[in-house]
Amino acid sequence: MRIGIIGAGAIGLLFAAYLHQAGHQLTLFTRTISQARKLESLGCQIQLSSGEHLSFHPRALATDGEGQLTLEDIDLLLITVKQSSLATVIKWLKQHLPDHVPLVCLMNGLGHESLFADQLPNPVYYGITASGATKLGPTHVVEKGKGITRIGHLDQQENVDNGLAQLIASLEKTGLTITLSADIESDMWKKAVINACINPLTALFKVANGQLVTCGHLHQLMYQLYMELVPLVEKVKQGKAQKILNNGRLWQEIEDVCRNTSENISSMLADIQRNQQTEIEALTGYFLRMAKSYHLHLPSHQFIYHAIGFLEQRGEE
Amino acid sequence: MRIGIIGAGAIGLLFAAYLHQAGHQLTLFTRTISQARKLESLGCQIQLSSGEHLSFHPRALATDGEGQLTLEDIDLLLITVKQSSLATVIKWLKQHLPDHVPLVCLMNGLGHESLFADQLPNPVYYGITASGATKLGPTHVVEKGKGITRIGHLDQQENVDNGLAQLIASLEKTGLTITLSADIESDMWKKAVINACINPLTALFKVANGQLVTCGHLHQLMYQLYMELVPLVEKVKQGKAQKILNNGRLWQEIEDVCRNTSENISSMLADIQRNQQTEIEALTGYFLRMAKSYHLHLPSHQFIYHAIGFLEQRGEE
Repeated sequence: MRIGIIGAGAIGLLFAAYLHQAGHQLTLFTRTISQARKLESLGCQIQLSSGEHLSFHPRALATDGEGQLTLEDIDLLLITVKQSSLATVIKWLKQHLPDHVPLVCLMNGLGHESLFADQLPNPVYYGITASGATKLGPTHVVEKGKGITRIGHLDQQENVDNGLAQLIASLEKTGLTITLSADIESDMWKKAVINACINPLTALFKVANGQLVTCGHLHQLMYQLYMELVPLVEKVKQGKAQKILNNGRLWQEIEDVCRNTSENISSMLADIQRNQQTEIEALTGYFLRMAKSYHLHLPSHQFIYHAIGFLEQRGEE
Repeated sequence: MRIGIIGAGAIGLLFAAYLHQAGHQLTLFTRTISQARKLESLGCQIQLSSGEHLSFHPRALATDGEGQLTLEDIDLLLITVKQSSLATVIKWLKQHLPDHVPLVCLMNGLGHESLFADQLPNPVYYGITASGATKLGPTHVVEKGKGITRIGHLDQQENVDNGLAQLIASLEKTGLTITLSADIESDMWKKAVINACINPLTALFKVANGQLVTCGHLHQLMYQLYMELVPLVEKVKQGKAQKILNNGRLWQEIEDVCRNTSENISSMLADIQRNQQTEIEALTGYFLRMAKSYHLHLPSHQFIYHAIGFLEQRGEE
């Protein structure tokens, strides 16, 4: 397949490596020309968790100032940008993407679903991945543990109708574990709850994920964050709440994630360490806006929202 | 007067300097013999906010292992220890302090009032001071702004009866501004509310006091902490609540404290920076225990309580 990837971050480059290895024709879309040139001249260096090193030179184009770009020759576009770049990306897609090209959005947080559905005529699939990766430099990524990637359409009927299974089958041969999600919306909510409990805490206290279960104080804080989200999920998602909360076992799942990724640096901590904008708006910020419209109060999330806001504003010392 | 001071921290040494300068006979009581020897051999060096440098060699005794100490020759004992040493200090006072010697407790936070009243027969006065001081070394203190010190008895009738005014008059000649408080309990509560809003935030984010009003995110967090304490004060202190909350103007007072001490490092931040135990238990911890017994919920205070607990446990990096 001819696959485009927009967003050359850790997950974007990791997926590029697997897709390239499986023989797909790749085009990476970066924001600036200099990033695109760097990817083409230096290539990508990916260290897989198997120990294997992949190195390849992808075709790379900049969304900013590459003249007349056409996305006609693409069968599928994978979106791995940050939520903060989303408005710019959607504006660009409206101009350059033919209506028939399907999109797979592999993004953290919530809130982007409605943006895509409202503004683009294309078939849009959403994905969440449990794969982890850390970017060491503009072209250098280390895989941190392999995990399942789930993809689905928000309209569950569409999953059956439109050949998503076939699309997934062709991606499965890559070495990535990709499965069809029968209810991607619930999966996205669940992942957002998990991330909203883990990521901001690791960023505020500059700890790896495992410390949230081994240190009593941090464990308590994570539980406080979790407990505030339970009534929100129950009120906002109603019929799907018990599925999202895994019938009360989501808390144990969150603890398991911390244990299974104990040495990992969350993406939010990595952003803070690199003085980059975090995804707090798409996680904690989204839940706070939801809570407000449902007249619920999430004081601990409000606290950590401003705490991360302060760290972003100040920059790392 | 023959004045003893137990606790050779920043405030203890600052008061010692003023009292020494005014001609009072001082004895400093330290925890360890080595501290006492250091104070006697090196003397105290105090840099006043007037620019003046005071240097003096106080008599210093250790509460730990100085053999048979007697406090018979003392007219007044000033207590400037941390809340965390209080149990040990009271036990020691029970053994060594004659019943007639009056105590003035100049301590941060709340909770110690009942300990003294329950366990010692002595007349006990409580004080709060708006004077600030930073300890640069075991015998070296810098005064950071002069403020009023208020002293009073918890039983307001006692203030009138027992010659406290005379005691205060003799301390007033020292250059310290000391006044009699007609309601020291409300004054202590008010100061504890102010400190619980300012100190833990400065310690968590490693900022001087002024940043809590100049940075929007921190200002919001401070307001969140304040707003949670309002219903607690109203429920616990009832008749005195409006006095403590200054009829709704306490929030403006807190902002003023931040502005007036904008360059100051709070005692809690100083403790965190020196890897010392903070006074979180006597401030936030006290309010949380109160809230629990009144079935109130203070989520932001609970959050910052565990945040500071984590920083104490980890130590500074």
